[in-house]
Amino acid sequence: MTKERLKLNCDMGESFGSWKMGLDEEVMPWVDMANIACGFHASDPNVMSTTLKLAKQYRVSVGAHPGYPDLNGFGRRSIPMSQDEIVHNVVYQVGAIQSLANLNSVKVEYIKPHGALYNDMMKSEEVFVGILAAAENFSLPVMILAGTDNSRYLDLADQFNVPLLFEAFADRAYLDNGLLVPRSHPDAVYHKEDDIYHQVMQLARYGSITSINGSKIQIEADTVCVHGDNPESVAMVQRISQSLAAL
Amino acid sequence: MTKERLKLNCDMGESFGSWKMGLDEEVMPWVDMANIACGFHASDPNVMSTTLKLAKQYRVSVGAHPGYPDLNGFGRRSIPMSQDEIVHNVVYQVGAIQSLANLNSVKVEYIKPHGALYNDMMKSEEVFVGILAAAENFSLPVMILAGTDNSRYLDLADQFNVPLLFEAFADRAYLDNGLLVPRSHPDAVYHKEDDIYHQVMQLARYGSITSINGSKIQIEADTVCVHGDNPESVAMVQRISQSLAAL
Amino acid sequence: MTKERLKLNCDMGESFGSWKMGLDEEVMPWVDMANIACGFHASDPNVMSTTLKLAKQYRVSVGAHPGYPDLNGFGRRSIPMSQDEIVHNVVYQVGAIQSLANLNSVKVEYIKPHGALYNDMMKSEEVFVGILAAAENFSLPVMILAGTDNSRYLDLADQFNVPLLFEAFADRAYLDNGLLVPRSHPDAVYHKEDDIYHQVMQLARYGSITSINGSKIQIEADTVCVHGDNPESVAMVQRISQSLAAL
Amino acid sequence: MTKERLKLNCDMGESFGSWKMGLDEEVMPWVDMANIACGFHASDPNVMSTTLKLAKQYRVSVGAHPGYPDLNGFGRRSIPMSQDEIVHNVVYQVGAIQSLANLNSVKVEYIKPHGALYNDMMKSEEVFVGILAAAENFSLPVMILAGTDNSRYLDLADQFNVPLLFEAFADRAYLDNGLLVPRSHPDAVYHKEDDIYHQVMQLARYGSITSINGSKIQIEADTVCVHGDNPESVAMVQRISQSLAAL
Repeated sequence: MTKERLKLNCDMGESFGSWKMGLDEEVMPWVDMANIACGFHASDPNVMSTTLKLAKQYRVSVGAHPGYPDLNGFGRRSIPMSQDEIVHNVVYQVGAIQSLANLNSVKVEYIKPHGALYNDMMKSEEVFVGILAAAENFSLPVMILAGTDNSRYLDLADQFNVPLLFEAFADRAYLDNGLLVPRSHPDAVYHKEDDIYHQVMQLARYGSITSINGSKIQIEADTVCVHGDNPESVAMVQRISQSLAAL
Repeated sequence: MTKERLKLNCDMGESFGSWKMGLDEEVMPWVDMANIACGFHASDPNVMSTTLKLAKQYRVSVGAHPGYPDLNGFGRRSIPMSQDEIVHNVVYQVGAIQSLANLNSVKVEYIKPHGALYNDMMKSEEVFVGILAAAENFSLPVMILAGTDNSRYLDLADQFNVPLLFEAFADRAYLDNGLLVPRSHPDAVYHKEDDIYHQVMQLARYGSITSINGSKIQIEADTVCVHGDNPESVAMVQRISQSLAAL
Repeated sequence: MTKERLKLNCDMGESFGSWKMGLDEEVMPWVDMANIACGFHASDPNVMSTTLKLAKQYRVSVGAHPGYPDLNGFGRRSIPMSQDEIVHNVVYQVGAIQSLANLNSVKVEYIKPHGALYNDMMKSEEVFVGILAAAENFSLPVMILAGTDNSRYLDLADQFNVPLLFEAFADRAYLDNGLLVPRSHPDAVYHKEDDIYHQVMQLARYGSITSINGSKIQIEADTVCVHGDNPESVAMVQRISQSLAAL
Repeated sequence: MTKERLKLNCDMGESFGSWKMGLDEEVMPWVDMANIACGFHASDPNVMSTTLKLAKQYRVSVGAHPGYPDLNGFGRRSIPMSQDEIVHNVVYQVGAIQSLANLNSVKVEYIKPHGALYNDMMKSEEVFVGILAAAENFSLPVMILAGTDNSRYLDLADQFNVPLLFEAFADRAYLDNGLLVPRSHPDAVYHKEDDIYHQVMQLARYGSITSINGSKIQIEADTVCVHGDNPESVAMVQRISQSLAAL
C-alpha cells in the first residue's frame, strides 16, 4: 500500500447468520480496502468466507476488522479487558480470518480494530500497545485515525515493527486539533452529500480538511473510511471513487 | 509423529471464562498430545493462550480441537450444517488457535474434531470430507477413531493429501467389529482402573484390544485418548505413561 | 380468541441488536396476532420491548415465539434436547417475554414455537409434550399446524389443559393429506401474489385448501401465518386483511 | 422477611452447561437466601431449574440474581447500557427465573443484581433507578449493600414502592465510612476463618463492624453474603449458621 492515491476503505462482512447488514455486493466494486468483521461483534465463518470471495472478485485489499466480543452491542460497547486479553482476542480473530482468507486464496493485508475497540485504541496507550503486540504476530500494519501529528502513535508502533495506516473519515466533522467532533455534538456527522464529497476531495487534493470552525488543518491520511449501508451511500462511494480515479 | 510408541492424547483447555474444567496442569506432564478446544464448544482466547503455554512447557504436541458452536451443549449436540459450513467453522477455529500458538511460539500439529463433530465425522462421509477440506488448508493431519480396517478413511484422506492419525479409547469397551460399544449400553465405559490400564497396555504391546465378547481384535492406533478430569484419572494417566515409557 | 374470523398471525421482533429484520412497523397494523421472538433465536430484551409497544399500539394479540438457543442458525437448526430441557428453555423464554409484556401493559396470549422447534413439535410427541408442559405453566394456548384431522394433538393437549390454536400457511403448498409440501419440493412455496391471496380467501370462505394435486382438503384453521419481510409481502398482508374484513 | 435474625445469602446456580461452579448442594442447607443466576452471566434454563428445586428442598428463600449479558466475563465486566436497556435486561431475567420458579412451585422473593451490575448500581443513580424500575414491575424488593446510612437509597426506592434489603459482606474489610475496602487493597478480603466468623457474629450481635482502622461502625444489615465455592467455605457457612441459630 503506497500513499500515492487516497484509498477508500469500508467496513464489510457485517451480516450475521440470517441478518443482513450493508450492501457489500454493491459497494465492493468501488472501494480499495474491505475491513471484514471477524465474528466477535459481527459476521460468522460463513459470512466471512462469502465476503472474502467478494473482495477477491474485485481485487479489493482485505483487512481484518476485529472487535470486542459483543454481538448484541455490535462491538460498540467498551468491554473492560486487560492488555493480555486484548492481545489474545485480537490474535484469535485475525488468525481466524487469515485462515479463511487462505482458504479463498486471498491475503489479509492489514488490521483495523472496530467500534469501541478502535476508540479505546486511540484513547488508551495500553489498548493500542495490545493491538500492536497482536499485529506484530502477523507482521501486519494497523489502521488508525489520522491526526495532525501522528508521531506519538508512530513511535509506539516502531517499537513493535508494526507499520501504521492512517485513515480520515468522509462524513465526520473535525476539530481544529485534528480530532473528530464528538458524536454528542449536533454537527458531528455530515449528512449532506456535497459536504462528504468535498471533504474527501479536499483531502485527496490538498491533504487538508476544513474544521468545524473553518480552519484548514493538515491531515496525513492514507485512506478514507466510507460506508455502504444504503443505496445513497453506495452512490456516494461510487461518485467519490470515480472522482479520485480522475485526479 | 511416528508410530513407534503409542502416544497419549488428552482433551485440554476446556475451561471457559470463570469456569474451570479439567486438571490440565496436573495431567499435561504425562501426555504426548494436547487436544486444545478452540472457543466454539469450550475455551476462549485467554484459556487457549494459557493452555498453549502449558503444552509448550512440557513439550507436548498441540492439536486443534474444533467443535460445533455450542457452549451450552459443550459441543456434544449435533448442529445441522452443510459441508461448506463445516469447512468454514473448522478453518475459523484452527486458524484462531494456530495464531495463538504462533504468539506463544508453539505449532499446531494436528486437528482432532470434538464431541458431536467427531461422531458425525465418523458416521457421515459428508462431514468427514468437510473436515478434510479444512485440514488441507493447513496441511495438518486429522485424528480419527481407529478401527480394524481404516482403509475407507485413508482413501478419502488421500484425495486431500491429509494424513490421518488413529486413536483408540482407553476407557471404552469395543465391539467385535472394532467399533465402540454405544454409550447406551451399561458396559460401554470402563470405570475400573485395571480394565483401563490393561486395555492400553495390550494395545501398546500387541496392537490388539479384547472386545466386550472376549474376542481379540486388531486395532491400528497411533495414540490413545485419556482423560484428566479428576485426581484419579490423572493418577491413571501417570501410571500408563510410566508403563509405556518402560516398554 | 374465537374461531369467528380467520386471524392473521405474523412472526415479529426478529431484529437483534444492530441487525434489523422484518418490516414490523409496516405490517403490524394489518395483522391480528404478533408472534414475538424471545431472545434465543432472535430478538433481545430491547427489541422485545419495542415490539411489544408496537403490538399494543395496534391492539394486536401478542404471542410468545420461543425457539432453540441458536442465534447464528436463527432457530432453524434442530438442537437435540431432552424433554425436560425443552420445558426449561420454553418456560424461560415465555417467562421473559411475559414480564416484558407486563412492563408494557400488554398480555401474552399464546405460545407459538419457532422454526426447528415448531417442526420438531409437529413430528415428535416428546417435543410436543414438552411444549405443552411449558404452556400449562402459563395457562396459555399453543399454536400448531392445522391439518385435516387435529384430534391427535387435541387429545394430548387436553391432558395438560392446554387449548390449541391451529394455523395454516398462506404461501405454502399442501399435500392431499393436509401436510405441507416439503421445502425440498420445487413448488413448496407460493411466490405469486394471487396464489397466496386465493389460498387465504378460500380458507376463510370455505375452510378448505386446494392441494398441490388439485384436491380440495378441509383444514380447520383459526389463523393464517403471513410474512412482513419486504414491501411486497406487507402489501399482500394489507390486501388479505382488507378482504377478510369485508367478508 | 423480617429483620429479626441476620440472614445468610449466597450466590448459587452459577454452573453453565457442562461447567460446574460452587458447591450448591453442600451449602444450600446452611443458608437462608439463594441468589440464583438467570442465564446472562451464568446458569442456563436447566441449571436454574435444578437450583430452584434444591432451594425448595431446603426451604431457602429464592432471589433472582440478574447480571450483565457476558458469560465469558461472568458478569464482572461493566457493559455500557442506557437506563432503559438495564430495565429490559433485568425484567427479562427476573421474568425468566420467576417462570421457572413457578414451574417448580417456588416463589422468587427478591432481586439481587450480580457483579458489575451490583457495583454499578451502588455507584450510579441511573443504574440503581433502572433496577428499581425493573423491580417495581414484579413488586419485589432489591438487595443492596448496607452502609452506615442507607437513606439515599431508601428515598429513591420509595419513589418506586420497592422495599430494600441490605446486605453486609462476611469476608470483606470495611472503611470507616462503611464502604468496602477496594479490592485493589492487599487487605480487602479476609481469608482467615476467624476474621470472617467474628465479623459476622459482631454484626449479628451488635449491628456493628470493626473497620480496617479499628473503628466500630454501625451497619444496618438484613443479611450477610457468604460463599460456597469450596469445602472450607461451606464449613465456614455451616459454623456461622449454627452460631446464628444459637444466638
